[in-house]
Amino acid sequence: MAPLLLHEYSASGNCYKIRLTAAHLGLALERRQYDILKGETRTPEFLATVNRNGRIPVLQVGDRCIPESNAACWYLADGSALIPDDRFARADMLRWMFFEQYSHEPNVATLRFWRAFVGEDRLSDAQRAQIPAKETGAREALAVMDYQLARTPFLIGDAVSIADIALYAYTHVAEEGGTSLAAVPAVRAWLARVAALPGHIAITA
Amino acid sequence: MAPLLLHEYSASGNCYKIRLTAAHLGLALERRQYDILKGETRTPEFLATVNRNGRIPVLQVGDRCIPESNAACWYLADGSALIPDDRFARADMLRWMFFEQYSHEPNVATLRFWRAFVGEDRLSDAQRAQIPAKETGAREALAVMDYQLARTPFLIGDAVSIADIALYAYTHVAEEGGTSLAAVPAVRAWLARVAALPGHIAITA
Repeated sequence: MAPLLLHEYSASGNCYKIRLTAAHLGLALERRQYDILKGETRTPEFLATVNRNGRIPVLQVGDRCIPESNAACWYLADGSALIPDDRFARADMLRWMFFEQYSHEPNVATLRFWRAFVGEDRLSDAQRAQIPAKETGAREALAVMDYQLARTPFLIGDAVSIADIALYAYTHVAEEGGTSLAAVPAVRAWLARVAALPGHIAITA
Repeated sequence: MAPLLLHEYSASGNCYKIRLTAAHLGLALERRQYDILKGETRTPEFLATVNRNGRIPVLQVGDRCIPESNAACWYLADGSALIPDDRFARADMLRWMFFEQYSHEPNVATLRFWRAFVGEDRLSDAQRAQIPAKETGAREALAVMDYQLARTPFLIGDAVSIADIALYAYTHVAEEGGTSLAAVPAVRAWLARVAALPGHIAITA
């Protein structure tokens, strides 16, 4: 594999997913930091050479870039046991990863970003008006996960996949955004199960 | 393959993606309609038997369900020419599909849903406050696509993939939500290219 360079903001759960996938696979990643609070991913140079969409993480593979955290996790894990061979299981894994980006991240991660990084008093009125809907969305997303995780040890069954890594990233720090895990015991048990896997690393690693 | 049943609301671009993928592959889909404006995907029966997340589309394969439109497209296209074999190209395709769900659909599709289906006068204050940010997000997402499509005929290069199908679905009806395509000529040319492919069907088919 060509050398791997992660363009990132290390406290971001989306960036952590990629580091966690690489750690499970024993892959070395070079890391380059950007301060998203200072707009460092919106500079002309970043837009021209790393990601036209102005976002991190981006996984650079040689001289080619892969934006979107879950696509980067897929790239790293392709051909490994972290992606199932079975056709249904593979689609089911992607189902959880799209769920993560549509129903979980915009609620759980955004509440954390607004409250723990930006500061609630610095939000715009339009952002503040979204908080109740995001709190409801976060609760509902966790309930969907809890329903599944009360039935299977990992999201798609008995084996860990990159869907677990993708959803672990922001779920394990949900409470930093004021999202309680008290009502989702199966999620809490799963968090402990993921954190106990060989190869696991912390978000601060 | 087990019999395929699409749980859907036919005007939804997310549902259309799956029908369009199936049409390209020559696969027959049974279809069951739900009125999302009447909450028909939030009934106890739907939540218990189709999708705990209360959303359509859901692709049912035999007695198993795949929520999330892009995961369902992947399931149908797995092993076909609509998903590339090359490791980088496959991740790049998924990159566009996650971009679609994170940066495009919540802006382009939500503006269409609010304006053409719900009605702007029936939005909540919190929803109305989000319109300027969603208009900006829609413009930015289309600009990201335009940049790529000025360089390659399809999103990941010379060949059509399910990333094109996923992004065609809401882009071709963007103007129903007030999102202009005037500033993105490469996107307009690509829309015509996708619509001219053998196997193409309209959203109303």
